[in-house]
Amino acid sequence: MRAVDIIAKKRDGESIAREDITAVVSGYTSGDIPDYQMAALLMAVYLRGLDPAETLALTEAMLHSGIVVDLSDLADSRVDKHSTGGVGDKTSLIVAPVVAAAGVVVPMISGRALAHSGGTLDKLESIPGFRTNLSIEEFRKALQETGAALIGQTEQIAPADKKLYALRDVTATVACRPLMAASIMSKKMAEGITGLVLDVKVGNGAFMKKESEALGLAEVMLDIARRMNSQAVALLTDMNQPLGRAVGNSLEVIEALETLKNRGPHDLNQLCRELSAEMLLLGGAVNDLEDGRRRYDDLIKSGAALEKMRTIIERQSGDPRVVDHYDLLPGAGKSKDVLAYSSGFVGAIDTEAIGHASMLLGAGRLRLDSKIDYGAGISINAKIGDSVNRGDALSTIHFNVEDRISDVEAIVTKAYTIVSDRIQKPNLLKARLG
Amino acid sequence: MRAVDIIAKKRDGESIAREDITAVVSGYTSGDIPDYQMAALLMAVYLRGLDPAETLALTEAMLHSGIVVDLSDLADSRVDKHSTGGVGDKTSLIVAPVVAAAGVVVPMISGRALAHSGGTLDKLESIPGFRTNLSIEEFRKALQETGAALIGQTEQIAPADKKLYALRDVTATVACRPLMAASIMSKKMAEGITGLVLDVKVGNGAFMKKESEALGLAEVMLDIARRMNSQAVALLTDMNQPLGRAVGNSLEVIEALETLKNRGPHDLNQLCRELSAEMLLLGGAVNDLEDGRRRYDDLIKSGAALEKMRTIIERQSGDPRVVDHYDLLPGAGKSKDVLAYSSGFVGAIDTEAIGHASMLLGAGRLRLDSKIDYGAGISINAKIGDSVNRGDALSTIHFNVEDRISDVEAIVTKAYTIVSDRIQKPNLLKARLG
Repeated sequence: MRAVDIIAKKRDGESIAREDITAVVSGYTSGDIPDYQMAALLMAVYLRGLDPAETLALTEAMLHSGIVVDLSDLADSRVDKHSTGGVGDKTSLIVAPVVAAAGVVVPMISGRALAHSGGTLDKLESIPGFRTNLSIEEFRKALQETGAALIGQTEQIAPADKKLYALRDVTATVACRPLMAASIMSKKMAEGITGLVLDVKVGNGAFMKKESEALGLAEVMLDIARRMNSQAVALLTDMNQPLGRAVGNSLEVIEALETLKNRGPHDLNQLCRELSAEMLLLGGAVNDLEDGRRRYDDLIKSGAALEKMRTIIERQSGDPRVVDHYDLLPGAGKSKDVLAYSSGFVGAIDTEAIGHASMLLGAGRLRLDSKIDYGAGISINAKIGDSVNRGDALSTIHFNVEDRISDVEAIVTKAYTIVSDRIQKPNLLKARLG
Repeated sequence: MRAVDIIAKKRDGESIAREDITAVVSGYTSGDIPDYQMAALLMAVYLRGLDPAETLALTEAMLHSGIVVDLSDLADSRVDKHSTGGVGDKTSLIVAPVVAAAGVVVPMISGRALAHSGGTLDKLESIPGFRTNLSIEEFRKALQETGAALIGQTEQIAPADKKLYALRDVTATVACRPLMAASIMSKKMAEGITGLVLDVKVGNGAFMKKESEALGLAEVMLDIARRMNSQAVALLTDMNQPLGRAVGNSLEVIEALETLKNRGPHDLNQLCRELSAEMLLLGGAVNDLEDGRRRYDDLIKSGAALEKMRTIIERQSGDPRVVDHYDLLPGAGKSKDVLAYSSGFVGAIDTEAIGHASMLLGAGRLRLDSKIDYGAGISINAKIGDSVNRGDALSTIHFNVEDRISDVEAIVTKAYTIVSDRIQKPNLLKARLG
């Protein structure tokens, strides 16, 4: 079937056969199908959807566009965690060392900051010397030695996804459930894992604003995992405010290290505890979730998780001294408080705006080739439900470049809604699907 | 506004502001907006539609992407006819000389064969020497001297449309009402005309299969004309069987000449008579349609229209002797009859299949760069309502290349539905909108 006929089929709401999906993905990866035809198809998919069989076919075609890492000789259980993206989400930097410290192998392929959302790779690269661009062979070796490795998507892993993701980004076809699910699952399945914990964010700082959308995405991903005979579980978690108190690369590394030192903010620690328990259960290291939560507490309190993080940093050529000396991380020369314009309680935080403000400071990317300012970011002092007085510092902006500070200040100020009545803190864990 | 934000707006079913449409069209024409972004936008437009204001803005942006010919010094009235495309539609070759012979200027910019549908330019180019690629200056001069000129879309006329049309063709976004309307009207308005007769085809050989779709397209085009203060009228005409009896380039030129000699098939003559009457009325040469029809008959019977055609051919470097000597036109070395598989009445003809078969013979284009075999084509012997006996020649295939003859024979045979009960001939003129 010609590409244009496949586009017409999806345009008219019909299903595309598995072999045609496979042909389109391999044609696009090889360059035989041009960007413009794929762009038209992506928009048709965005507006017409993909059924479960089509989504699975797409995932498998993207998965097999590159190599699938075989880690079966390393350990029987290999577990990863994936978040759908939010603001202040540094859980990977905590759960990877925790779970590896319990003896479960964690092969983690992460992404970069895009739009308002941060990226694990950029956070890690704020650590001087830290290499995320390990080859597959180096990745294997690091996993063998330390039990966890955090790298970026190499050219060999799901190249179709890499090419498609870049195209979706410029054609307004990112926020599409089956495309997101196929993108995530094709990369994750290429890691050679046996179990996957999905942290599906929902709220005004997530790509999915509504719980029904997030549930839908979670279900599509779990369905793919089931059809591919892989173990998976999904947690729906709140992203109506930044996770923890740090937004920005160095700032988040510090907060992750503080959490590993048992001094992390409550919400971040709570989520990492839950994600770790799920990973430990999938990895066969514990018998139930309660056991997993206790193990998390032990590994944090004993310092074993922190030591594992030090080893991971060292193994990936980072300066391990940052664990004790935060001043070795890139900093921000200047800071400015964003003040409460009235007294009351924090009623809501426009989390996407906070992420956007952080990006404007240089902590994120406006374009794929934007340079990151690792030291820049925002400390969130007041979170939802906190009582504030007029003039209190709601947040602190950390920056090196003065250019856009008044814009950022205005965005962050407006991001806060202060209400007069006491308000309940949001529930971080919204649902569990397994 | 960034292109990606405009795409997202249309994707979500919102209207795009006039200035954004203008910016997108000029950005696409200049190459600043890449094909893949335009492809995504086109698919969003296909599935979400454009409202009348957006359609007008698109038409005007496309119109002003090139030059608008000013022919006001030639004559007060300049009238053209446009057909939305069908099989066997050679009316342009008849109405242009008829209307010009009545003293109304006919500046006609036509298209080429694409998919199953024929193209006026290809038909004309089957006349040895005939040049359709006149420059705008040559076009003006030809109009001044002969009153009618038939040329192709130059690089200067609506270049945005040319680029967009090529992209639509490969991204399954051709059959979209506002895009079709904007494409047609931007080219026609660039011709410097004061009046336009739209022949909107409907049926199984047209791009619009349903009367409601054709009516919708006609209304969108008339609305554009009204908003641009131009006179226009639309006829909805039947395309459930080829028009006339000839399909293929030389064959259609011969049939057009025969019609100018008052020996044309009834349906073709009837439609040309109606279209000419409308054009003559818009051009101010007659007082009402009945007067226009009489004038058509006179110009045919007197030979004035035929003489005008001879002049047009000569003026555009074609060999005028073809008017009397059809053997000067490219011919087909071989022919084969397609026989009736049973006795009865022709109940239906799959007209798109006939057009497709003709294309396979070489009379049309499978790709933009396909070479045309001017002599190839199909003579339609039996039309809807005709009684046929088993073994009668329903059609005759004319060809030079033997390769696909059995395919073509099968397609043409299957295109005919023979029924046992007498059936009424279809009504050629379905509606008039003005």
